[in-house]
Amino acid sequence: MLLTEAQVQRALDDLDAWHIESGKLYREFQFSSFVEAFGFMAQVALFAERADHHPEWFNVYNRVKVWLTSHDAGGITERDVALARQMNAVIEARS
Amino acid sequence: MLLTEAQVQRALDDLDAWHIESGKLYREFQFSSFVEAFGFMAQVALFAERADHHPEWFNVYNRVKVWLTSHDAGGITERDVALARQMNAVIEARS
Amino acid sequence: MLLTEAQVQRALDDLDAWHIESGKLYREFQFSSFVEAFGFMAQVALFAERADHHPEWFNVYNRVKVWLTSHDAGGITERDVALARQMNAVIEARS
Amino acid sequence: MLLTEAQVQRALDDLDAWHIESGKLYREFQFSSFVEAFGFMAQVALFAERADHHPEWFNVYNRVKVWLTSHDAGGITERDVALARQMNAVIEARS
Repeated sequence: MLLTEAQVQRALDDLDAWHIESGKLYREFQFSSFVEAFGFMAQVALFAERADHHPEWFNVYNRVKVWLTSHDAGGITERDVALARQMNAVIEARS
Repeated sequence: MLLTEAQVQRALDDLDAWHIESGKLYREFQFSSFVEAFGFMAQVALFAERADHHPEWFNVYNRVKVWLTSHDAGGITERDVALARQMNAVIEARS
Repeated sequence: MLLTEAQVQRALDDLDAWHIESGKLYREFQFSSFVEAFGFMAQVALFAERADHHPEWFNVYNRVKVWLTSHDAGGITERDVALARQMNAVIEARS
Repeated sequence: MLLTEAQVQRALDDLDAWHIESGKLYREFQFSSFVEAFGFMAQVALFAERADHHPEWFNVYNRVKVWLTSHDAGGITERDVALARQMNAVIEARS
């Protein structure tokens, strides 16, 4: 179910470094190497496949840009927020 | 070493489905699922890391868009052509 | 639910190259390179995580050995047969 | 080049949690989930392919067992020690 603008704002309060870009949840991740970046992508791929909810993402070398939206719902849903939280948890476990 | 425009054209003759976009080698790949797309990306990541030459790429679900250029050389080099060839070889081994 | 011996035998009839080893479904896969082997493993990892049912597997270079059993059920279940089928489908899509 | 027994012992002094098993460098890694274990394996796969030196490894769920030896040299070499160090560095970056 689509989140209201207020619900999205509340979700962003707990999603460190995410913001809205073109109506999607967006974050850019930076790592120390391609190896670290791809290790992160492998973990996220597993989360995404398990939830059957996949990111739009771009990678070059040590940077990964992620856009999350629910194409079937036409906007941001709880599933996007959940995937964003899992990505942040992967990052926090590393630092 | 930067390829001349003629050399790039000759390389493209042998690179099925690649063309030039914004001065970079570009191809879009389509798979039957996210699982297949990510399996492809894992193979390409290994080729890229081995060559220490990494793609710019975007993925959403079963589609992967790839741009290849050599940032240090300021354009397309033989290393880009080599990586494009490896990607095509992965695809051809599957069909 | 545990499969009976007869059910396992029927499943094996349709599972090319799998047999029983130490009470588990077992198959050895051989690829042309480590890159291909790991690309296969990445695909299987995604299937496994999605089903929340994970293999025991061993890899060295271009070889992957897989043992499937359902630890919670104490033997081979339909979930093992399903994962074995997915692995064979990956292989068949490549040849 | 094969390391002498003394050289292997010195290397082990700096390789937290590795020991010798059947003449190979051996360590078992434990993670909190399959996702974390496979993210680790993806990083190690990239290191291994880059060095053209691949591990023998076994995974089930959140555990990864690794044996390192240099088949061409017939024992443990500096390449095994280097790969073991890279694996430990991945682990240390996460905790």
